[in-house]
Amino acid sequence: MTTAPFPVRPEPADLPAPLPEPAVAELRLEVVLGALSDPLRMGIVRKLLLESEAFDHPCGWFGLDRPKSSLTHHFKALREAGVTRQRQYGLERRSHVRVADLEARFPGLLRLVADWTPPAA
Amino acid sequence: MTTAPFPVRPEPADLPAPLPEPAVAELRLEVVLGALSDPLRMGIVRKLLLESEAFDHPCGWFGLDRPKSSLTHHFKALREAGVTRQRQYGLERRSHVRVADLEARFPGLLRLVADWTPPAA
Repeated sequence: MTTAPFPVRPEPADLPAPLPEPAVAELRLEVVLGALSDPLRMGIVRKLLLESEAFDHPCGWFGLDRPKSSLTHHFKALREAGVTRQRQYGLERRSHVRVADLEARFPGLLRLVADWTPPAA
Repeated sequence: MTTAPFPVRPEPADLPAPLPEPAVAELRLEVVLGALSDPLRMGIVRKLLLESEAFDHPCGWFGLDRPKSSLTHHFKALREAGVTRQRQYGLERRSHVRVADLEARFPGLLRLVADWTPPAA
């Protein structure tokens, strides 16, 4: 199996439980690709892969100029497809990429995401 | 660059010109992933990769139980995303996968498609 090409930060102690998500064996390629087919969501995953500064990040960290309700929808779509794991910290949800799970099931896919460039504005 | 992991059949002589499609430099990962996020379309690409018996194939070859207008739509979506190349042979359009172009731009992606298994019915 391919080893993960992206740094995976050690889990902090006393993490909240993850919000509902598909198990690694339940990940479906067509569903994961659908989640990544939106440029905003692709950008979220790419930024998490390349620029993470902590174990997981709230939506405010991404600096996205979209209504909160829209961002909530996109982060949920990524989690429900199995691309990210989300945890509830008080009023805030934070996300990180399921690097090991995705590399195990779809080796090389995250490298393509990391190499992605946003469409010209 | 990765070499193509799938057999590419030599071009027959006197091929009709391809129907309109993006150039290899114009291929967009998020668009290609969107085209592949539909199980029917993923199945079409996988079958072309693994079971091709000729240079390209008409939609009847796939044995898909869908209305002709729906199939026309899906084959067009694959072509417009740059996943397949379509040519008009008289009344019939035939498709093949742009293996070299996709491997050049998104190495490893077609391997994931070939390894895909359809969702349980």
